[in-house]
Amino acid sequence: MTETPLDLTLDAARLTAQLVDFPSESGTEKPLADAIEGALRALPHLTVDRHGNNVVARTRLGRAERVILAGHIDTVPIADNVPSRLDEDGVLWGCGTCDMKSGVAVQLRIAATVPEPNRDVTFVFYDNEEVAAHLNGLGHVAEAHPDWLKGDFAVLLEPSDGQVEGGCQGTLRVLLKTRGERAHSARGWMGSNAIHTAAPVLARLASYEPRHPVIDGLEYREGLNAVGISGGVAGNVIPDECVVTVNFRYAPDRTEDEALAHVHEVFADCGVEEFVVDDHSGAAMPGLSHPAAAAFIAAVGGTPQPKYGWTDVARFSALGVPAVNYGPGNPHLAHRRDERVETAKILAGEERLRSWLTTS
Amino acid sequence: MTETPLDLTLDAARLTAQLVDFPSESGTEKPLADAIEGALRALPHLTVDRHGNNVVARTRLGRAERVILAGHIDTVPIADNVPSRLDEDGVLWGCGTCDMKSGVAVQLRIAATVPEPNRDVTFVFYDNEEVAAHLNGLGHVAEAHPDWLKGDFAVLLEPSDGQVEGGCQGTLRVLLKTRGERAHSARGWMGSNAIHTAAPVLARLASYEPRHPVIDGLEYREGLNAVGISGGVAGNVIPDECVVTVNFRYAPDRTEDEALAHVHEVFADCGVEEFVVDDHSGAAMPGLSHPAAAAFIAAVGGTPQPKYGWTDVARFSALGVPAVNYGPGNPHLAHRRDERVETAKILAGEERLRSWLTTS
Repeated sequence: MTETPLDLTLDAARLTAQLVDFPSESGTEKPLADAIEGALRALPHLTVDRHGNNVVARTRLGRAERVILAGHIDTVPIADNVPSRLDEDGVLWGCGTCDMKSGVAVQLRIAATVPEPNRDVTFVFYDNEEVAAHLNGLGHVAEAHPDWLKGDFAVLLEPSDGQVEGGCQGTLRVLLKTRGERAHSARGWMGSNAIHTAAPVLARLASYEPRHPVIDGLEYREGLNAVGISGGVAGNVIPDECVVTVNFRYAPDRTEDEALAHVHEVFADCGVEEFVVDDHSGAAMPGLSHPAAAAFIAAVGGTPQPKYGWTDVARFSALGVPAVNYGPGNPHLAHRRDERVETAKILAGEERLRSWLTTS
Repeated sequence: MTETPLDLTLDAARLTAQLVDFPSESGTEKPLADAIEGALRALPHLTVDRHGNNVVARTRLGRAERVILAGHIDTVPIADNVPSRLDEDGVLWGCGTCDMKSGVAVQLRIAATVPEPNRDVTFVFYDNEEVAAHLNGLGHVAEAHPDWLKGDFAVLLEPSDGQVEGGCQGTLRVLLKTRGERAHSARGWMGSNAIHTAAPVLARLASYEPRHPVIDGLEYREGLNAVGISGGVAGNVIPDECVVTVNFRYAPDRTEDEALAHVHEVFADCGVEEFVVDDHSGAAMPGLSHPAAAAFIAAVGGTPQPKYGWTDVARFSALGVPAVNYGPGNPHLAHRRDERVETAKILAGEERLRSWLTTS
């Protein structure tokens, strides 16, 4: 593991390579967090705070708006793909090139090279994004120091292939339980079959028509799916329970309570005896109508897309900060042995963010 | 474990107690099989054969009819309920009292005390009935020595509470598989959901109307039930397979092929991609119209009942021997820690079988 300090005078592509060669699988981020903290503390225009292996740096220029640039510094386990390798086509290969050390490099370059941005900027570098949600460093900072995360708009530099992906849909998982009465299957009429009782649940799922609401100009696509079903006691027993696990992906115009109420409503009169919430993460509004967001879109170009999957932008949304994903990596290449990023896209991302934060 | 030889001069109730006190959990039947073989070889009117721990004894009187009395000599594991205990109400408690050493005692008493029956009689004592079907001693004898099991009619002395239970229903277990295509549940429209595809299967099961056919005067009750369902890859993945395990219990007027064809027909056009037969044991005709059976019914009295569950009578049926269950135990007390049998019923059973085999 290199002890070389980070060199923020490198361009974002070379800095990405340096970050990739500084391994930081989830749980082992401390040396990289130390290096990032050290590099930022050398910049006199920033105030730097640290919580665990999470580093937050801020300009304090008294601007009317404050925006956040955030990224996680951990990677999935290395798969024989470190150190990084730059090929003749300008593609940088290695663990974290895409998800998301290229984004972190862009953050660091903006921090180093834009001492007087047109909006106050907060830079957030956090750990443990690739593992269980309760370990997530952004969540820990939000809980311990919510004031560090105040802002009008946030950009998460997760891989989005250089496109703006706005907000994110919520995800609710509910166990729908039907009940019956056990009996020997040779005398099935003496019991009642919980799997048969679940028939209307599957019928309702099969005929469900999801909404495609347009929010802040983005068309979201909801979905309600069974992601699991289980029932059965033995090959000769009428089963007394069946559990259908449904996953409701919902657009950010529903609150968590409304999403749960919708699931109850969809399966009313379907013979469900018990609804158990297994997992719930709320949606995030894209916030594209905010002036800081509108300026961002104008600066980075392209047509914003809705984000269907749940991401950490929802943590910002929960704090009242609308957020988008915007990073140079191609999301389909994340977590792969052949993970890679086009260096031209890293440089383009750096330039667009600089433009947003410097154009008057 | 007692080494006392069996005393066939005891009445069937006392002999039951002696058999219960001679432990013979499945797989450990050899000492009891040895004792039974020894006791039978002492009877000059019987020819005795042995295959493994299965003992077959036959009269060879040249009668026009041959009937079979069969029983298994193993028990489920003992549960602190051996040795046996006779209470003041004449109830004998202990492992195997009901299932089915009381029946075996009746067989042994008939073997010992009816040297010249009006029909030739074959006595079958077999092992490993309480465990996996491929271990079943009756099946092993049927395969190795089918001639030992020839006959016009068979009585299996399994617990039936002193009632004749005719034939048995078949049991067919089939896996019905539906298929889809995996996708992230945040983008469910990019896949297809195999659990939703199974909706018509459950609807068909829920609305299925089983037959109640009358055969040889006995009303059977068919049943078609899901006994298991499973599907799901992960909490955020559209599942690409769902398996519904159905159990069809069918009356003995259907062959195995007809039963399977019926299942295919019921679930035609339900989206099932694959039918996999998981288990299949054919039904057994009660054969009550045979003269030997009619005489048996007349001798033992009562109204014959259909047998819903699958039993070893089907092994006889497969050999062309119609069969019934008729034993002194109450089937609901089998395999319980408080297993027991009324000794009066053992003696009554012995007398009724003796009457059948001695009345001219």
